[in-house]
Amino acid sequence: MNFLSDTTAPAHPDILAALADANVGYAPSYGNDALTAELTERLGGIFETEVDLVLTTSGTASNALALSVLCPPHGMILCHDEAHIHRDERGAPEFFTGGGKLLPLGGEHAKVAPEHLERALAQWPQDFVHAPPPRALSISNLNESGCTYSPSELRALTRQAKSNSMGVHFDGARFANALVSSGENASTMSWRSGADILCLGATKNGALGAEAILLFGETRALLPELQARQKRSGHMGPKARYIAAQMLAWLKDDLWLDLAQSANTAAGNVAGILRNVGATIIHPVDGNEVFAQLDEELAERLRAAGVGFYQWPDGSARFVASWSTSNDDLRALEKVASG
Amino acid sequence: MNFLSDTTAPAHPDILAALADANVGYAPSYGNDALTAELTERLGGIFETEVDLVLTTSGTASNALALSVLCPPHGMILCHDEAHIHRDERGAPEFFTGGGKLLPLGGEHAKVAPEHLERALAQWPQDFVHAPPPRALSISNLNESGCTYSPSELRALTRQAKSNSMGVHFDGARFANALVSSGENASTMSWRSGADILCLGATKNGALGAEAILLFGETRALLPELQARQKRSGHMGPKARYIAAQMLAWLKDDLWLDLAQSANTAAGNVAGILRNVGATIIHPVDGNEVFAQLDEELAERLRAAGVGFYQWPDGSARFVASWSTSNDDLRALEKVASG
Amino acid sequence: MNFLSDTTAPAHPDILAALADANVGYAPSYGNDALTAELTERLGGIFETEVDLVLTTSGTASNALALSVLCPPHGMILCHDEAHIHRDERGAPEFFTGGGKLLPLGGEHAKVAPEHLERALAQWPQDFVHAPPPRALSISNLNESGCTYSPSELRALTRQAKSNSMGVHFDGARFANALVSSGENASTMSWRSGADILCLGATKNGALGAEAILLFGETRALLPELQARQKRSGHMGPKARYIAAQMLAWLKDDLWLDLAQSANTAAGNVAGILRNVGATIIHPVDGNEVFAQLDEELAERLRAAGVGFYQWPDGSARFVASWSTSNDDLRALEKVASG
Amino acid sequence: MNFLSDTTAPAHPDILAALADANVGYAPSYGNDALTAELTERLGGIFETEVDLVLTTSGTASNALALSVLCPPHGMILCHDEAHIHRDERGAPEFFTGGGKLLPLGGEHAKVAPEHLERALAQWPQDFVHAPPPRALSISNLNESGCTYSPSELRALTRQAKSNSMGVHFDGARFANALVSSGENASTMSWRSGADILCLGATKNGALGAEAILLFGETRALLPELQARQKRSGHMGPKARYIAAQMLAWLKDDLWLDLAQSANTAAGNVAGILRNVGATIIHPVDGNEVFAQLDEELAERLRAAGVGFYQWPDGSARFVASWSTSNDDLRALEKVASG
Repeated sequence: MNFLSDTTAPAHPDILAALADANVGYAPSYGNDALTAELTERLGGIFETEVDLVLTTSGTASNALALSVLCPPHGMILCHDEAHIHRDERGAPEFFTGGGKLLPLGGEHAKVAPEHLERALAQWPQDFVHAPPPRALSISNLNESGCTYSPSELRALTRQAKSNSMGVHFDGARFANALVSSGENASTMSWRSGADILCLGATKNGALGAEAILLFGETRALLPELQARQKRSGHMGPKARYIAAQMLAWLKDDLWLDLAQSANTAAGNVAGILRNVGATIIHPVDGNEVFAQLDEELAERLRAAGVGFYQWPDGSARFVASWSTSNDDLRALEKVASG
Repeated sequence: MNFLSDTTAPAHPDILAALADANVGYAPSYGNDALTAELTERLGGIFETEVDLVLTTSGTASNALALSVLCPPHGMILCHDEAHIHRDERGAPEFFTGGGKLLPLGGEHAKVAPEHLERALAQWPQDFVHAPPPRALSISNLNESGCTYSPSELRALTRQAKSNSMGVHFDGARFANALVSSGENASTMSWRSGADILCLGATKNGALGAEAILLFGETRALLPELQARQKRSGHMGPKARYIAAQMLAWLKDDLWLDLAQSANTAAGNVAGILRNVGATIIHPVDGNEVFAQLDEELAERLRAAGVGFYQWPDGSARFVASWSTSNDDLRALEKVASG
Repeated sequence: MNFLSDTTAPAHPDILAALADANVGYAPSYGNDALTAELTERLGGIFETEVDLVLTTSGTASNALALSVLCPPHGMILCHDEAHIHRDERGAPEFFTGGGKLLPLGGEHAKVAPEHLERALAQWPQDFVHAPPPRALSISNLNESGCTYSPSELRALTRQAKSNSMGVHFDGARFANALVSSGENASTMSWRSGADILCLGATKNGALGAEAILLFGETRALLPELQARQKRSGHMGPKARYIAAQMLAWLKDDLWLDLAQSANTAAGNVAGILRNVGATIIHPVDGNEVFAQLDEELAERLRAAGVGFYQWPDGSARFVASWSTSNDDLRALEKVASG
Repeated sequence: MNFLSDTTAPAHPDILAALADANVGYAPSYGNDALTAELTERLGGIFETEVDLVLTTSGTASNALALSVLCPPHGMILCHDEAHIHRDERGAPEFFTGGGKLLPLGGEHAKVAPEHLERALAQWPQDFVHAPPPRALSISNLNESGCTYSPSELRALTRQAKSNSMGVHFDGARFANALVSSGENASTMSWRSGADILCLGATKNGALGAEAILLFGETRALLPELQARQKRSGHMGPKARYIAAQMLAWLKDDLWLDLAQSANTAAGNVAGILRNVGATIIHPVDGNEVFAQLDEELAERLRAAGVGFYQWPDGSARFVASWSTSNDDLRALEKVASG
């Protein structure tokens, strides 16, 4: 009963099988292979626009690389105070930007509140030489409290950002979970809602390690800059075909959406189980994450039975379901929870 | 009637005269001159402990250099949300630390509140590889709202920092103003209250450009690291004797305290004048800065008469008095203010 | 007939199979899994000493991370002018160290010549505040001209480095090729010859993407610093078990040495084929790389027939054999070469 | 008899006097003062073109700031192996560029040889993602061996740079010495010979601490970027009027050229004195620096008599004359030298 993180789950068999299929003969290295080209084409179709991309094996790397082409060293990145880039990446954006500043913003359920964004933009102008100007807005969707921004919520924020000449980054480590939760399509949940760059993650949703940084529209002109930084940071994988192969298999026949749907459904069940035993679910369960306020007795019982969950800094308990969370897992949790 | 900043004031004549005295013959460059040695000795006496120091001509540089020897690239600096290092140095600490993170904390009147510090330390532990650990606490005294921390306030904060293995930096751009305001001596307001490094500024208090970074106690072992960074950042002045000369004159016969006293007294008078015409003074006027909420009509009248003040991001008006603020300046302000 | 690079080769079937074996159930993420622990143990045995390690998927990342814990931002890394870290990593060491300097040294066949190292150490002292002191020596073995340093050659260099308080980094992207070429064992070719850190690469020798940074002796104390930087640079893989699994399979039953032996033998054959048609082999062929001076007619004939090789900056042609270079490949090359 | 460096000399009285003249009343801070505006105008006249500028108090800072707007973190700066930016600034360019690489080039008398530049450009192409492309060429004039590049020598180099889309930086720490040595005017020795940015130094030629970074032509568009970096690095002096005042006095009535002429003449005399006692002068004495090969007996005699000179890494002795080197100094040197 491991609900610690979706990174503890194994890879989906189809994705593993794709590695074997890709393991034939010689292939150009560093992203010049046929599978990477095919993937670029495929994602263009899914996102209904031409895209440029680079691949990595780490969501932290993807986020930091994306932000480093949007924000200069003397600029600022606005994000929610709960954002993964602020809380859980050991200062990766600061490192990759060469010392850019992150300004944490407030808002319920880890969603940036438009009025908080507005206040920050008023306090930190674009043309004051003494302070870093806001140059990028970063939004996680699915976000760090397991909630989905709707397209109109996204647009309310990105419109503010764009009218301040800022770039917009979407952290999509759990993008598929947000997609199936919202019922929207990929383009609506990305560039049509203002994203200039989307970090699309497969690692938490069935891959061994596969992440794509997608550039949309005019931001595609930043591809050479992005590749230079990808290389320089050790993220231009010599045998990139194996990353592309994973992601192609993940996208094939909507596997990515099916896996996300499974995880979301399982999370809903986890929430139900916890609610039934008196826990308070503190954020809407839109995706595959559940944040619960447990009483100490319940928490102890779960721990004693080996149920894995994560103690969140605010005192709540985070349970993450994954594509591989089984009905057995859920039944076992229910049994332990109900004591 | 210039109350924009103490950086708009001229230098005190005694300090200018000291440059001429120092301008005789050859002197070793880069801080190896006799005046720098004499200054080190003198400051040791004033602070009642042996100190090591390096000199710069900029408070921003001093703060950033000091922080760069306390906080690694993957660490975090805690400071007040209003701190100059966070708001007004264009990301200098992030640059000098190689991408360290600043975490802004709350508290009334720009003083870090102990409970805010405690909460931050609870949320950001020392041993979590995924997040930057707090490595340095930075406290401005006089602070950015013109308030003085008392020794016991300082100790309450630095004790927390030290029990978390953090270094402690005091931003003393207006240290002399805090000294005369508190009536405490230099040692009590620095290392005896927990400072490992003090950035002692003379530029805002009568010098042309002279700042000292003072290392206390065990932190003195960081001198070579500090010098390497001073050189590398272009702050090891080739003709350092002229910085040392300024600071020696500034300290001589308590000139620094007299100048600070003048500025503080003038600020008290500015506050009185503004209060008399109905303005609200929003922070205690401990030093040489006054923050007033002006009605629009008063603000407009002052501006029209050429009174220089600074619009603060929170909507208030900041008036800064300096050693050179004259009774004529005050009378002229009073006349304009009373309409 | 692809001799462009060993990074164009597929993965060995045993290594692919190990991924499937590892793909069972939940596993702690970020390197806390059982396979990583097993690998640490295994490598300790092979290197005949306790080691600490972190895993990445990129040799560039491994080198840069290793160097970043040996060299401060204001220090210098000495390496050969042909070193991969200097020529082919887009400034990764400069990035990871926060602006450290690389000083390129001379020497035949891409081997640092002891007298060049000595001269550099004389010109760049440890205690001159105005210049970056040499803090790390980096040696590639197998090196960039395909040559192996012998243990005594290594010791002559590392002894100089250590008597100057420098750390020693070995770039072992093709370490296995150097091992089988020299007939020495792993400990002799690493820490017993002065390496503090070895970047051990499997990617070019049969893996999909697997690299280990090994810390020896006192350098093991730098593990937390290394992990902080690994995280911060996006190289702490969330599903690290798949990297460890590859490397365990690679080491099993000396597979790594067998694969390296195959590649070395194939390279020897390539060299023979080219020599037979009049090409000059310009460096000893100790490992799996051949550098040949081709006349234009021969180069053209090879290119026309689709033989992949790399034009080196010095005008020579580089042919790289890999574990998967087959006898058919060699016969086909011979046929084309002999016209 | 101090010939250690021109940084050990005092300031010229006229420049000191200008500080007193500037020390009247309030002035806008951070470079928005009237003197800085006047200086910009004045330099535009002297250089026969509109310029933009920022002021600092350090040549190291000026060089590093200038290079940081020409070279991205993943780019490369080409300079002579003897360049001050490479040898004597503790990695400042690497720091300010965020990890850019310096590639040292050869050439007699510390002048970059065109064929060395050509070879470097051939080996390090603009469009190879795996290596930092050359983005800036840095030329010191007067250079580190005390030699002056002629306009045609400058053009031969800058033409190569520009045809590779590189920016061109001139380190003019001793620009005035090169001017009077060459008899050329300021525009011919800067932008007309290909400089995009000139770091014009007064500190070594009579000022207390005053350096200007001059932007020419299209490079003027980089002013906001340069100012952001100036602020961020602590080099936007709060009381910039005192730097501008120094430089205005320095330029007035050709004082800068007179001082440089004095220093150059004195250096010529030093060279004559040393030659007369059998020393070999190893570089042309174009400016105010003399490099001599001394026999040990002579060196010892000079040292014993308190003659200050600097032991250069190549074994020679460097003697630097300054504006304040007097005939008494020269006579005393002659007396000691002739034994």
